[in-house]
Amino acid sequence: MTTTQPQEQLALSAPIDTPALVLDLDAVERNIDRMQTYCNNHDLDFRPHVKTHKLPEIAQLQLSAGAVGVTCQKLGEAAVMAKAGITDLLISFPLVGELKLQRLVELTEHARVSTVGDSALVARAISDALASKGRTVGFLVECDTGLGRAGVQTPNEAAALAEFVNGLPGLRFDGFMTHPTVMASGPWLLAAKSEAERRRVRVAKVSGGGTPTAYQTHLVKVITELRAGTYVFGDRACIANETVRLEDCAVRVAATVVSRPTRDRAILDAGSKALTTDPAYGASLDGHGLIVEYPDAEITALSEEHGHVDVSACERQPEIGELVTVIPNHVCACMNLYDEVLVHRHGRPEARWPVAARGKSQ
Amino acid sequence: MTTTQPQEQLALSAPIDTPALVLDLDAVERNIDRMQTYCNNHDLDFRPHVKTHKLPEIAQLQLSAGAVGVTCQKLGEAAVMAKAGITDLLISFPLVGELKLQRLVELTEHARVSTVGDSALVARAISDALASKGRTVGFLVECDTGLGRAGVQTPNEAAALAEFVNGLPGLRFDGFMTHPTVMASGPWLLAAKSEAERRRVRVAKVSGGGTPTAYQTHLVKVITELRAGTYVFGDRACIANETVRLEDCAVRVAATVVSRPTRDRAILDAGSKALTTDPAYGASLDGHGLIVEYPDAEITALSEEHGHVDVSACERQPEIGELVTVIPNHVCACMNLYDEVLVHRHGRPEARWPVAARGKSQ
Repeated sequence: MTTTQPQEQLALSAPIDTPALVLDLDAVERNIDRMQTYCNNHDLDFRPHVKTHKLPEIAQLQLSAGAVGVTCQKLGEAAVMAKAGITDLLISFPLVGELKLQRLVELTEHARVSTVGDSALVARAISDALASKGRTVGFLVECDTGLGRAGVQTPNEAAALAEFVNGLPGLRFDGFMTHPTVMASGPWLLAAKSEAERRRVRVAKVSGGGTPTAYQTHLVKVITELRAGTYVFGDRACIANETVRLEDCAVRVAATVVSRPTRDRAILDAGSKALTTDPAYGASLDGHGLIVEYPDAEITALSEEHGHVDVSACERQPEIGELVTVIPNHVCACMNLYDEVLVHRHGRPEARWPVAARGKSQ
Repeated sequence: MTTTQPQEQLALSAPIDTPALVLDLDAVERNIDRMQTYCNNHDLDFRPHVKTHKLPEIAQLQLSAGAVGVTCQKLGEAAVMAKAGITDLLISFPLVGELKLQRLVELTEHARVSTVGDSALVARAISDALASKGRTVGFLVECDTGLGRAGVQTPNEAAALAEFVNGLPGLRFDGFMTHPTVMASGPWLLAAKSEAERRRVRVAKVSGGGTPTAYQTHLVKVITELRAGTYVFGDRACIANETVRLEDCAVRVAATVVSRPTRDRAILDAGSKALTTDPAYGASLDGHGLIVEYPDAEITALSEEHGHVDVSACERQPEIGELVTVIPNHVCACMNLYDEVLVHRHGRPEARWPVAARGKSQ
């Protein structure tokens, strides 16, 4: 499959109780450096998304490399990052409900905070909660430029909401955001920006996101800020869409072969509660992860704790008791299952980090 | 869909920070009573599986109702149950590796423990670890009677492994187990039992599992013990396969409508990190859960934190800020995402329970 032997880069020497999440810090640093260099070369602000790693330690590495702040998808993630001393937080999810807004107000006591929304209702509620406490947050109008998820539907709506937000106390209109950045995002966001400026609303930033198109962001010239998360670890989807190479995939699930019921079948102690059933989004791939040591094997099905592996195409056959490592289909979902990660550097165990922002469901 | 109005049975009166896991203790008790009564009526030992709930509180209810012990899928789950004072534990997964066996030995200091395996290699390693410490665990030979997962492949292999285990120190051969119980399991397990007995090996129990076929277990007469997990909560798959009724589904994900970008689309704050991407196993159902208050809506896609909902078929339309509750496709995987569950009784909040065995990956 490749000319390198990635398993040699990550020698799991100590006994490991499996399934376990193993992180290669060298690969993380290569990925951080590559993305930050890209952003520097193209004069883009970089605001990495912590939803992927949920680790303050990695967020600090990203900031040290030059990131302007971080992106969070949950208030709970943001609170963990603030507690770790990170002071510039974007929550790229519409915050709705009395309890959320109380927590947002509290968060502004510890960090410079911004958030997003696609409706006057959401903006008004945030404004009311913040202004009554004499606080301010940044606000980006979320724009649906192709995904069909949240976001206003037209550039005119975007500009109208921008104008509305711009007049609300407790909110600082910062600009527009979209996810993911696609080629169609360019004309869409440019039209929104022009219309907002025609209405005398200043558009300080335009923020685009997503690892798959991250390295093409400079082609969408209106964008001033990039948000990306998965790039920092890579996963099977990233390998398929060629954003992260196999040898730079920084997180694997270590698993043990626990059964060889037939010649063609092996069973791992990593199932859906270790790997998730997420597909490799954006890639047409069967199976539930890539076994690095057995690239010709296929994880055909997952029970909660069993990985069912078809090893019929493997020349060498895995044995009961053997340790293997799996690059998951979707690393962000996988990280969210573990309480700790085993950190390796230069192929040797270095630390155990708690996945501090895991399970912050709210 | 039904004549009852389940949302009225679970009035979420207090403000809830969403997404959150909500548990209806009345429904749990109905489900426990129904399954235990079934087992009593058919002279089956019942050993509920804790992988579904991961809650010592529920395990205690199951034992109080008459269960003979509990089933765990991980040593980590078993350790949590032992700590809560539960003293009869089956770990229905092959334990492989030095660290696992050390932990198994420790566990025998606190509970009567049994486990499973499908190879002489696994049995021998467990025997060596236990016998050297003067400890004993029960051992069931796992039989693949149709699923194609772990398990010996023929009744003769099962009997041969039984005979081998029966002669090992530190192991007490208890009998055979399979998952799931299907009609073909009957002749298979009967042949294994007969052959073992011909070899003068006593077969004290035959254990079958799985909620979908649980209430047909009496038809497979060789089975003496039933293991089932999902029955206690129910989920969208259980509704489809008619093992748990909608009004008895005991766990829901409470979510908030955070965006209404189009007339046909609503966005919930519950995505794959709140619901999982698991399908409703065994059912041919599209979508990622059932919104109880909007049964005609479909959760068409999940981002990590967004649920994308098609509301085009709904007569009444959900509004931003509205609370809804979702019956997940697969409740076992869903429970594993949350640190706590909001316990309701008679429709009122009663307690918050930590999901004590969540994230015990090993």
